Amino acid sequence: MAKKKQAKKNAGKRKTGDSIGDALRVTPGFQLADLNPAAKPAFSGKKQDAEKVMAAARNEIDDLQERLYAGGRDGDGPAVLLVVQGMDTSGKGGIMRHVVGTVDPQGVKLHAFKAPDAEERRHPFLWRIRRELPDPGYIGVFDRSHYEDVLVVRVHDLVPPSTWGRRYGQINTFERKVNEKGIHVIKVMLHISSDEQKARLQERLDRPDKYWKFNPGDIDEREHWEAYQEAYQAVLDKTSTDENPWYVVPADHKWYARLAVQQLLLDKLRELDLGWPDADFDVAEQKKRLAAT
Amino acid sequence: MAKKKQAKKNAGKRKTGDSIGDALRVTPGFQLADLNPAAKPAFSGKKQDAEKVMAAARNEIDDLQERLYAGGRDGDGPAVLLVVQGMDTSGKGGIMRHVVGTVDPQGVKLHAFKAPDAEERRHPFLWRIRRELPDPGYIGVFDRSHYEDVLVVRVHDLVPPSTWGRRYGQINTFERKVNEKGIHVIKVMLHISSDEQKARLQERLDRPDKYWKFNPGDIDEREHWEAYQEAYQAVLDKTSTDENPWYVVPADHKWYARLAVQQLLLDKLRELDLGWPDADFDVAEQKKRLAAT
Repeated sequence: MAKKKQAKKNAGKRKTGDSIGDALRVTPGFQLADLNPAAKPAFSGKKQDAEKVMAAARNEIDDLQERLYAGGRDGDGPAVLLVVQGMDTSGKGGIMRHVVGTVDPQGVKLHAFKAPDAEERRHPFLWRIRRELPDPGYIGVFDRSHYEDVLVVRVHDLVPPSTWGRRYGQINTFERKVNEKGIHVIKVMLHISSDEQKARLQERLDRPDKYWKFNPGDIDEREHWEAYQEAYQAVLDKTSTDENPWYVVPADHKWYARLAVQQLLLDKLRELDLGWPDADFDVAEQKKRLAAT
Repeated sequence: MAKKKQAKKNAGKRKTGDSIGDALRVTPGFQLADLNPAAKPAFSGKKQDAEKVMAAARNEIDDLQERLYAGGRDGDGPAVLLVVQGMDTSGKGGIMRHVVGTVDPQGVKLHAFKAPDAEERRHPFLWRIRRELPDPGYIGVFDRSHYEDVLVVRVHDLVPPSTWGRRYGQINTFERKVNEKGIHVIKVMLHISSDEQKARLQERLDRPDKYWKFNPGDIDEREHWEAYQEAYQAVLDKTSTDENPWYVVPADHKWYARLAVQQLLLDKLRELDLGWPDADFDVAEQKKRLAAT
């Protein structure tokens, strides 16, 4: 009871001294506008320290990922799904490259959701999401996701407000069903400042080796900055549940965001308490057979 | 003319002093049985040296892969397809993890071909292969491939010999068409000895954390070792073409095989002479727009 009271009192506050995951988890009352995108919650080191922490975690992640994969070989066992959202230039690609990219690619199923194509538009918005859910044993990674259907779609009213308005509840129901399939979800929002986005877009315009990353539409979208912040706030208010909470990761420092997402993945893998599957054959018998070859 | 004569004289021989790729490329007359699976062609260093070479190549591969990816953004530009074949335990998984795994996962499309399912069996054998070809800008990776249709299928006569016998020519035609789509193919066979396979299977039976990798069927297959070697020899004889040659990589030393495949990938990326795409927008105009936000 006292605990609950305390939780209410701390609503929306971030504690330091906790794990990064505890510090970044969205609780009721959380206000996006109050979080400094340049903050480094629950981490007091510098960039080089973060790189050391990340390097040190890699062996454990490797080991846990292999156990996860092994457990999926007979078609059941858990899976993990990392959902990454964020404004243009918030560093989603860097997460894919520097965090997801350190995991054995055989156990990863990465999908980048673009604007839906003609076939996808003919189906309910969750149809294409369902098709990309990870099989048992896999770490699925969504670069953008079903949340675009209450973000860009809401900002531009691509469907009537009554339609997108229903989607928050549909998403919560969907994610509970995803959990029931044994898929453990980590939802990450990379949170950057408007100034940092401007600097990153500027870099893409200053460097010919970055032109290909630039799209004039990015500036159109930038003009809807406030509307996007509101749409994200609504996502956090309505879809950060006990089962599937959001983690808002301050991302003006790319190195902090990478560290944070790696730690969230590590925490989730640890939680699963993964063993090695038993042999589904007679070990002694197979040894005898092998020796005879 | 003199060159041609020399080539004929050297048929099946491996030169040292060349690049690893030159040393491993299959030329007419090549005999698999003559290649020592413990050899380290065109590399005189040890394991630690190989690891240094691999680490040093990573930045260049990163850069080239990003150029490849950038070039594919408008739906054309080249792609690369790495085909990896080899007996059970030959280290295909290690190549995926330690070579493919160092490349940005956003630009990689990895597919492991298993025994065909019911739907796949209803189609011609190349149907499922075609579906997994990389789009422009991607590095496609096949862990097993259409070559299984002249390997396991031949060894076990899963289709009549007249059917698998026609497939070599069909594969050559198919791969030429793949080239015409702008997909550059690297075909790698990981070559291990029977003794090394025995040791690796033994390890899977000795270590409970490896049980999940063992399948009693692996020993059944091992009993067809000679038939598989013959089937591989036929593949090399019939499908190592000027356009799409095979590279046979001695793989008893895992570290050598990884180094070799990384160098083959690097060589191919270098060959493509990849620049950065031009801006398809007016840079000055977009800078002005951005400044105004």
